[in-house]
Amino acid sequence: MPNHQHIDADDNIAGGGLLHRRVFLRRGVAIAAMSATGTGFAAPLEVPAWSKSPGSSMSPYGSPAPDQQNVVRTVLDLYPAGIANGAGVSFTPLEHLQGTLTPNGLFFERHHSGVPEINADEHRLVVHGQVREARSFTVDDLMRFPMTSRIAFIECAGNSLFNSFAEPQQRRAGEIHGLVSCAEWTGIRLEDLLDQTGVDSSASWIIAEGADAAKHSRSIPMEKALGGDALIALYQNGERIRPEQGYPFRLVLPGWQGSTQTKWLRRLKVVSAPVHTKDETSKYTLLQKDGQARQFHFEMGVKSVITSPSPGVSPTESGVYNITGLAWSGAGRITRVEVSADGGQSWAEAVLETPTRPKALSRFQQAWQWDGRPTMLMSRAYDDQNNVQPTREAWYEPYAANQIFHQNAIQVWSVAENGEVSNVYI
Amino acid sequence: MPNHQHIDADDNIAGGGLLHRRVFLRRGVAIAAMSATGTGFAAPLEVPAWSKSPGSSMSPYGSPAPDQQNVVRTVLDLYPAGIANGAGVSFTPLEHLQGTLTPNGLFFERHHSGVPEINADEHRLVVHGQVREARSFTVDDLMRFPMTSRIAFIECAGNSLFNSFAEPQQRRAGEIHGLVSCAEWTGIRLEDLLDQTGVDSSASWIIAEGADAAKHSRSIPMEKALGGDALIALYQNGERIRPEQGYPFRLVLPGWQGSTQTKWLRRLKVVSAPVHTKDETSKYTLLQKDGQARQFHFEMGVKSVITSPSPGVSPTESGVYNITGLAWSGAGRITRVEVSADGGQSWAEAVLETPTRPKALSRFQQAWQWDGRPTMLMSRAYDDQNNVQPTREAWYEPYAANQIFHQNAIQVWSVAENGEVSNVYI
Repeated sequence: MPNHQHIDADDNIAGGGLLHRRVFLRRGVAIAAMSATGTGFAAPLEVPAWSKSPGSSMSPYGSPAPDQQNVVRTVLDLYPAGIANGAGVSFTPLEHLQGTLTPNGLFFERHHSGVPEINADEHRLVVHGQVREARSFTVDDLMRFPMTSRIAFIECAGNSLFNSFAEPQQRRAGEIHGLVSCAEWTGIRLEDLLDQTGVDSSASWIIAEGADAAKHSRSIPMEKALGGDALIALYQNGERIRPEQGYPFRLVLPGWQGSTQTKWLRRLKVVSAPVHTKDETSKYTLLQKDGQARQFHFEMGVKSVITSPSPGVSPTESGVYNITGLAWSGAGRITRVEVSADGGQSWAEAVLETPTRPKALSRFQQAWQWDGRPTMLMSRAYDDQNNVQPTREAWYEPYAANQIFHQNAIQVWSVAENGEVSNVYI
Repeated sequence: MPNHQHIDADDNIAGGGLLHRRVFLRRGVAIAAMSATGTGFAAPLEVPAWSKSPGSSMSPYGSPAPDQQNVVRTVLDLYPAGIANGAGVSFTPLEHLQGTLTPNGLFFERHHSGVPEINADEHRLVVHGQVREARSFTVDDLMRFPMTSRIAFIECAGNSLFNSFAEPQQRRAGEIHGLVSCAEWTGIRLEDLLDQTGVDSSASWIIAEGADAAKHSRSIPMEKALGGDALIALYQNGERIRPEQGYPFRLVLPGWQGSTQTKWLRRLKVVSAPVHTKDETSKYTLLQKDGQARQFHFEMGVKSVITSPSPGVSPTESGVYNITGLAWSGAGRITRVEVSADGGQSWAEAVLETPTRPKALSRFQQAWQWDGRPTMLMSRAYDDQNNVQPTREAWYEPYAANQIFHQNAIQVWSVAENGEVSNVYI
């Protein structure tokens, strides 16, 4: 039930109905307009059936509510059944989530050869190569190190690849941008581990190899390994890392391509040059217009996406809505997110949830009065390293048409007269 | 394999072998001593069976590793089967966790009449009483409000009650102190919701009632409701709150007794005095030595517990260990945690994970060289409101012998010559 009479002209802070957040704090106004059914009630309150007898007991390990069974990862196999089993992705359903963390059950997946069924008692981490003393560590050895925690996002280098297609794909927000998730990682500082073996002064790279059948392997510059934020993570959001996230442990390199944050880590070889493994030559390079490919482009760009409204999460009628979404940057901390409700003609500065955390997901909110007419919603993120999220056109400028990695372009959601939200390019 | 030769005299910062953290950063020293099996390896590396063929595929919703099935909540029914079904608790296994957050599946439970099976489409939140306009909100109504997130612990007022027994109970750390957990809560500021109904100037309390069969009900002072940190939480660690945590929504009052943070919230009645519900008279009051009971003691005290070593998580031989644990305060931010390894004769300041968050769990670490002789480990927390965690004796001073609520006394772990850790009173 639209109710516009309490919105004043100076509440509008940008075109298309973007409002100052004070409208949400004005007694009985904006949210009354939002709330179609939030009306009176009959006293005394009815006692529903579920309140009339004791419910179920305590349980050893909980699960989401039965009616949340549609809030799951969207699985995408990259090859037909029988070929390269377990090679694919699953997308975090960003449009169903709130806050800034991702529950472990919904953290995105990217496997090159499925999830190995590792016997943790027999699994080893070997550190060798240009070191003073090569070492082999059991899980128990690693559990005795002092640990540290940091909240960090991980994003697949191929996230948002559907927006590299010539025609905009009609998928949900999480099915386009949900190869990013965020968790509290706890483990051993990689520099503390390398202190145990010593590193030769000639060494400048480390090869990280996983124990999956694909032996996923990447070359990591020594500066990142010793830079203070690199972890051998054994825990995620408080509990041991799950099989699909690298159990018993993985590399966490905050802000970098997910592909470098080797899961099921079994080997760190200290070397003096990158080895150009198949995983850093056949993929994860950025093909440019001039035919050259940019290799070892590790840091994920500054990025944002509106998760509500979004495809499948549509406004139902004209009225006041809360636009919300996520922003992140591999370079550091998000400092600002702007929202446009008129296809980029004007922008309002959205409210950022504080404290923002470096190299973690940040949540933004923006009040919006939809007048029921077709429009376009966009968000644009800024970070503390002076990076700005580009338009799709600007992002594509240096790249070949089939380049899919590090897509951090502004997402444009089109809102139709019936409220339906779709993916468009402008 | 003990290896003491690289520990210098001035590495000792308190009695009983407490060491400066620099020992963990000394190349090839302390952790070499810790690491009994972290020795050489045969090249080339063996390729284990699980690396030889593709693993399992992506999945809609993940689970912990199969060998982590013992990392579960410990369920304790408070009455015999058939009486008050679902009245009891389940404890978070603190000794198995790391970092500062609790995964949703392991967040502690306290139910007075089990978990109601709520139909979220039919569930309502009614706000009435001394308000300008009584309102009834559906879940969809609430989902349209702007939301905010905060990381906060919730602790049952009865946590650590086993340490109120005359004889120390031999249970694991989580089975004594695990009625505390920590999550990112996302929802509507309670003051924003109350803005929608208006609150009469005569009103000073709010009655919060749950939709469980026990109709769990508490009186909340208006200052807390309007104090800025009170939430109607719909999300926990990113996903919708689970049934055992109050689905579809609960009250979150950071720092206060869990009992006040009403789950399955169905009603907020604005009133001018507390109503002395059964849940705030028959329990959750603090019986004093003089026979009077302290009522409406809401804020949880400053507290800490060493989670490793702890019962069942024992040192196996003399050598260097990392002592770790959790600290929290309902009054604010943890500023300091001290650890003693000689039964309280001397104390060292432990390393606190930063940033510490107000009214959230904080993690501390302390290097310890165990000489293989019996000793006692303790931790003592301080907060930014000048509160200090008391000894058990000091904590009990005002209370009757059967008082079990708000137990925040220093936990003493005894370490035997064989490394076995047990609960003792001193």
